[in-house]
Parts: sequence; structure tokens; C-alpha cells
Amino acid sequence: MLLQELRTAVLEANLELVKRGLVLYTFGNASGIDREQGLVVIKPSGVDYDDLRPEHMVVTDLNGKIVDGRLKPSSDLDTHTLLYREFPGIGAVVHTHSEYATSFAQAGLPIPPLGTTHADYFCGPIPVTPSLTDEAIGGRYVHETGLAIVNHFRQQGIDPLAVPAVLVAGHAPFCWGKDPHAAAHNAVVLEAVARMAYRTLTLAPGHPGVSRALLDCHYFRKHGTRATYGQTS
Amino acid sequence: MLLQELRTAVLEANLELVKRGLVLYTFGNASGIDREQGLVVIKPSGVDYDDLRPEHMVVTDLNGKIVDGRLKPSSDLDTHTLLYREFPGIGAVVHTHSEYATSFAQAGLPIPPLGTTHADYFCGPIPVTPSLTDEAIGGRYVHETGLAIVNHFRQQGIDPLAVPAVLVAGHAPFCWGKDPHAAAHNAVVLEAVARMAYRTLTLAPGHPGVSRALLDCHYFRKHGTRATYGQTS
Amino acid sequence: MLLQELRTAVLEANLELVKRGLVLYTFGNASGIDREQGLVVIKPSGVDYDDLRPEHMVVTDLNGKIVDGRLKPSSDLDTHTLLYREFPGIGAVVHTHSEYATSFAQAGLPIPPLGTTHADYFCGPIPVTPSLTDEAIGGRYVHETGLAIVNHFRQQGIDPLAVPAVLVAGHAPFCWGKDPHAAAHNAVVLEAVARMAYRTLTLAPGHPGVSRALLDCHYFRKHGTRATYGQTS
Amino acid sequence: MLLQELRTAVLEANLELVKRGLVLYTFGNASGIDREQGLVVIKPSGVDYDDLRPEHMVVTDLNGKIVDGRLKPSSDLDTHTLLYREFPGIGAVVHTHSEYATSFAQAGLPIPPLGTTHADYFCGPIPVTPSLTDEAIGGRYVHETGLAIVNHFRQQGIDPLAVPAVLVAGHAPFCWGKDPHAAAHNAVVLEAVARMAYRTLTLAPGHPGVSRALLDCHYFRKHGTRATYGQTS
Repeated sequence: MLLQELRTAVLEANLELVKRGLVLYTFGNASGIDREQGLVVIKPSGVDYDDLRPEHMVVTDLNGKIVDGRLKPSSDLDTHTLLYREFPGIGAVVHTHSEYATSFAQAGLPIPPLGTTHADYFCGPIPVTPSLTDEAIGGRYVHETGLAIVNHFRQQGIDPLAVPAVLVAGHAPFCWGKDPHAAAHNAVVLEAVARMAYRTLTLAPGHPGVSRALLDCHYFRKHGTRATYGQTS
Repeated sequence: MLLQELRTAVLEANLELVKRGLVLYTFGNASGIDREQGLVVIKPSGVDYDDLRPEHMVVTDLNGKIVDGRLKPSSDLDTHTLLYREFPGIGAVVHTHSEYATSFAQAGLPIPPLGTTHADYFCGPIPVTPSLTDEAIGGRYVHETGLAIVNHFRQQGIDPLAVPAVLVAGHAPFCWGKDPHAAAHNAVVLEAVARMAYRTLTLAPGHPGVSRALLDCHYFRKHGTRATYGQTS
Repeated sequence: MLLQELRTAVLEANLELVKRGLVLYTFGNASGIDREQGLVVIKPSGVDYDDLRPEHMVVTDLNGKIVDGRLKPSSDLDTHTLLYREFPGIGAVVHTHSEYATSFAQAGLPIPPLGTTHADYFCGPIPVTPSLTDEAIGGRYVHETGLAIVNHFRQQGIDPLAVPAVLVAGHAPFCWGKDPHAAAHNAVVLEAVARMAYRTLTLAPGHPGVSRALLDCHYFRKHGTRATYGQTS
Repeated sequence: MLLQELRTAVLEANLELVKRGLVLYTFGNASGIDREQGLVVIKPSGVDYDDLRPEHMVVTDLNGKIVDGRLKPSSDLDTHTLLYREFPGIGAVVHTHSEYATSFAQAGLPIPPLGTTHADYFCGPIPVTPSLTDEAIGGRYVHETGLAIVNHFRQQGIDPLAVPAVLVAGHAPFCWGKDPHAAAHNAVVLEAVARMAYRTLTLAPGHPGVSRALLDCHYFRKHGTRATYGQTS
């Protein structure tokens, strides 16, 4: 079977989302990419998570053309492939309607960095895209969603590796990472960060977020060449 | 046993409500209809969910007359039968006091379409009925509840197939669908939508909801002849 | 063993509170009374729920004098016994720090009847006592807590059988019922009602509650001689 | 193995935090001290809780020098050791990002004593430290975190044994106690207290908290020589 290992990793990422309470029914999808072969592995559309097996994963090229698989790929495929084409440093994409992050996306509000939990994972606010125009919605909607993400990061000068998550206005979050496990982990942490931001902002409306110094300090404790957290360095 | 298959489907819908955390103790009830025979199958009143078996379901005609069953039907039967008579396109009705949807019903507020999760299932706001008059409450209360729902949909020009849910003011939601499974599924999604709407509206009071274009786009991805979601099309 | 059946019922009520998420660690206590013998059975103080057995229950008379049992009774005993003496129609008392009801108690706010879930169980607002004076707190504090409840019901003309719950200001709820099972059931429903009231009031601040007609209608569907709910009438 | 009993107690405290829902992934850490030997036992950094065994715990002296253990200690070690040096009456320290307490820390707000649940454990508000300066953040950040706690308690005249918890601004809570079990217990109760304070303050903004008399009364029911709660006195 093509890309056996990546299929398993993508399946596990999808199941991690279920286990952590981020998806209801078949909502949500994860994918991963083999950069050498230029192939994307993604969850099929609308299949019960209980029934998912590695062989159900769909393999496409970077333009979304199916290379292997008998099931239809996730309906959000075109957003995933666009992110892979435009963010060459990422290895996996996760999309959920996790409820607190989605509430910020629905409100059209970014999640400011309010504390070190945020700062450990996201080196700046979680941005929210502008709303899609009616033309974009009526056109290649799923592709336009990806375009809105990429354009927003470019225009705001945000590094997708330093801020591996975005809120699509009126929709829900997309997250990414170096592999499916990391992307799912980021999605789970994003939801925890969103829960705490919701409560912080309802206690202290208009809170500006922590200082740049604290943000940098925490992010670089966990990431980069001077990381001090965990057993691997 | 009469209507064996529908009894089982109605029982499963009731149990799905429990599994998803929508009911406390014996609150809530689901029913289904066999349109050919004009017979309704409904949960009995006040029986523990653990003890429910297909043979406990109560079968009535469209006027609520018991045709089969030794237990008393759900006390909300008259609302169910009225909805079946007036909304000929529906095949099942579910009533719960799921907590977030009920909170909107208690507040007398509709749930505006704030994002694509809503738009995937409900093609417009979840409406809230006007309050019942004291006369209606003192009269055939359960029947009047159904009447308030039906009149509100007619007066507002809402298609019950495009918006398969309503909030009864000061009470709780009713949902419906083509069969008991779909009606329970709609009730579960409604509660998730209500949770996110609660948080969105407390973050961004007075949010007007997403654009008509986004609402239509998402609804028709999952419904109708051009649906692109899932494996069945 | 004295009062074997009541001991078991009191233990089961205590465990129901744990099962429904109303107590943390050893917080909370339930008791029941044998009116013929004038004996109260109550949970011991500070014992892990996992270890509780019927023989650990403490039996006291109506003045709190221990008649049977080697463990210390719940530190709230004097509130329980005072309620039994002053509310002769009740058969059991339950005290928890269930979190939403406690939040209203801490805020010093009654829970208004905002919908039919409330109206099915409580025929009016859940009242909140006035704060205890420093003298009362420094004196027989647990006794004074019961006195504040009883005095408030008398002064406000509230029937404890129609409204089987109270919020003690700055403390937490007490509930009661005809037997330990009913009192625990009321405590569980009170917490659900409080959760929904919290969300309703944050969505619609200052909501006045449902009409008197709806309140009466629902209460008498479940209680009294014209009850239509359940299988037992 | 050195300090076998304390290692086990520290491991159990860490697992209690997981069981009670206070930690996500590997967030959070607990430690304990053997005052006679002047040795600290602390969780290793970034190891899955499922894999933790007593022999994985790291033993250090009071300055954080590793005495026994092959894994890296928790990255928050320097805060723990500073607290042990400066608060000689404490026997264990627990740090979590439990979500409601962290939301208050992020908001920069203390948790006022709003009811008896709080007063049973914390004899006054849960204080929040001032924000760290950019210099402190850029310096020995983890040490400076401990210093901010200790200085705040000194300047405010707060007894760490009467108020065994603090919120570090923009970060999260630290709790302590006489042993690892008590410190974890305090962390669990703090989170429950924070949940209720959040709801109380959103229902009744600006609530000043309970009277001094109630605060003292409840605290001394559970602590000190006149305690009346539980079976041990």
C-alpha cells in the first residue's frame, strides 16, 4: 500500500481529534504530505471515525488529483492542498470545528496571546481571516478559503511556522505542523487556549495580551535551538 | 409486533439523545411516523432510558389515539402529532431540554446563523416562537405548543425542511428530520450550534450572522441535488 | 441494624450526587428521617464516598443527639435537623456545593423561573437567604444557617413543598424532598436549572421569568392530583 | 532507591492532577520535599503521564542541583526550589495550567473569597503577582517567577500557610501544601473555586466577597486546633 506510514499517522491524528473532544460526528479532517513524492494523504469525506482504517485514506497530488483511494476525499481538500503549496515548511494540516476556537472565528475576533500557554505554542495572536466576498463564496469556495488564509499571513507578515493556526472568519480553525501528530497536538492546544481566552476576555474585556518579551521567552523555551523543555534536546 | 423497524429506530433516536448528553433523567422524547399507515411511534412517558425496549414504544394515530401499547405515551404527544399533520414532509420529531438551546428558548432569542456549522444544517436562523397566552396555557397546552410552532413558521415563511428546528419560548427546542436518526442528529448539532452561538454572542454581542451567500453555499453542500459532502452522492 | 432501609436510601442519595457530578471529594451530604421514630440518618463527615457503607451512616434524634454510629456526623447536621423540625412535610435533606447553584448563592441572587424545566420542579423562584450577621456566624453557625432558611421561607410566604430548594447566601444550596431519592433528584435538577439560568441571564440580563400561568401549568403536570406525567397516575 | 516514599507521593500527586482534569498532555508538575535531608523530588520534563514511574522522578537539592535521576527535571524546577527555600512551612508544590484559575491569572485578577467553598481552604483572596518586567523575563525567568510570588506574599503580608495558592500574572497558578497529596488537593479545589468565581463575577460584576467573619469561621472549621470537620480530630 502506498505511503503506509503516513496513512497511519494521518488516521491517528484524526482519532486524536475525536479522543480530545474536538470533533462531533464526522466533522473535522486531518491530512499529511510526503514532500519528496509530492503526495497528500487525507481523510475520506463523511465516514464514521469508528470505521476509519488506513486503507480508507485518500492519496492525491498537490493539485488534489486522486492518485490512490476509492472513497471521496474530505470536502475541504482544496484548502489543504493550497496550504501545502504555499506554506512549504508544513507537513500536515488539521481542520476542526472545535467549539471555542470556532466561536472566536464566528465572532470575527483573533485570539490575543493572553498567557504562557498560548505563548508556548503560538508566537503571536491567532489571526482571523477577512470574510470571503460573495463572489469567492459563489466561486471555488474551498480553494478561496485557503487563499484567504495564505493572503492574510502574507499581508500581515506572519510566519506560518511561528503561528501554526488560523481562524477562518465565520467558519472554524485550521492548524498545521511538521507532521500529523504535531498538527493535531496544535489543534488540541489551540482549543484549550481558546477556552481560556474566552474566559479571560469575558472577565477582562479588551485585555491587550502579554508583553512581547514574555511571548518570545516562552515560545523559544519549547522551540528552536535553545529549547529547554522536554527530554529530547 | 406492529412497526417493528420504526419502533427500533425511535428507540435508537432516544438513546442517541442520552449518549450525546442532551437529556437528564427521563427528559426528552423522540417519535417517528409511518406515513403510509398514518401511524406514529413515540417514547412512553417517564420511563428510565436504561429500561426502554422497542415493545415499550407507544403507537398512535395522527390524532394521538393509542393504537398499540400499554404504557402512557410521552406527555408531549399532542405537539408531535400536530407537527406531523401540518409538516407533511417530516418523518420524525425530537424534543429535548438540551441546555444551550433551551437557554436561548428561555431568553426568547433566536439563534442567528453565525457560521458554517450552523449553515451546514439550518438554512437560516433557528426561530423562537412567541410566548403562549395565558388562555393557551390554561387550555390544550401541549396542542397549543405545536400550534405556536406551525403558525410561526407559516407567518415567517420558513420552510420546515430547510430549518428543521425551533425554540419554543420559555420551554425548549423541537427538531425534526426525514427519519428518527436524522431528527436526533439535528438535535445534537443544534445543541453544538447553540453552544457556539452562546460564546460568539457573549464575545461579540449583537453579531448579525453570516452573509446569505455563505449560508446558501454551505447548506447546499450537504443538501439537495448538488451536494458534495459524504460518500453517497 | 437500626433503620437499615433508610440507611441504604441515604447512602444511595449521597452516591447519586457523586454520579451526577454535584460533589467534589467529600463535599456535600444527604440525610433522611424516619418520622415515626423521630430519627435522622445522615452521612458521616469527611469520609471518601468510595468507602461509604450503610453501617457508616450516623443516626441522631431530632436535636442532633447521636443514637447510633461510631463516626462523627456531617458537620452540617444542625442545619438538617432544624429543617426537619420546622418543615414537617419533608423526608430528606441534601446539601451540595454544586457549582452553578453555588454561583447564584455566592452572587446573592435568586434563580428566577425562566422556563418549563424550572417550572416542572419548583413552583416559583429559588430563593436566596439574607447574609448571616457576624453575630450569627460567630455563634451557632450551622444552626443559624438553618434558621436563616426557615425564617426566609416564613417571611416570604414560600411553601417548602412547592419550592423544595434554597440558596444560602455566600454558601451553597440545600434541597429536600419526600425521601432521599427525591431530594437528590431535586438537587440534580436544581443544578441543571441553574446552568440554564446562568446562560439565559448572561444572554438576556434582567429577564423577569415566565408567566405565572406557565409556572402553575407545568408544576401541576408533574405534581398533585391532576398530574399527567409518568406511568404512575 | 532514594526517597522511595516521597517519589511515590509525588507521582500520585501528578496523577491526581490528570484524573481531575487539571492538566492537558504533559502540562503541569508536582514536587515534594524531604525537609530533613533537604532534598526535592520533582516530575521530569515533558514525559507522558501514562509512562511515569517513581524511578523517573528527579531528586535535587534545594538549589536545584540534581542528586539522583537520569531525566531532566521539570522546566519549572527553579520556581519550586525557591518556594521551598522561602516558605519553610510547606512540604510540596504543584503547578498546573488549570483553565479557570489560569483565566484569572491571564486577566491579572485575584480570586476574591466569594463563598464558603473558598473560605474552607483559602483564608483570603487568591492573590495575583505583578507582571514580570522585561528584564526579569529576559533573565533567570523561572527563578524570577518564584521571586515574584514570594515578594508579593511578603509585601502584602499574606501567610502562605493560610493562603496556599497564587496566580502568576499572565501565566497560571502555583499551589502548595504540607505534602504532595495536600498540594494536589488544594490545586483541585482552587480550580473548582475559580470556576464558581468566574460564574459569580459574570452574574454579579464587582462582587466584594464574603465578610471577614464568614471567611474566618469556615477556614477554622477545617484547619487549626478547633477544627470540627472530618473524622481525625
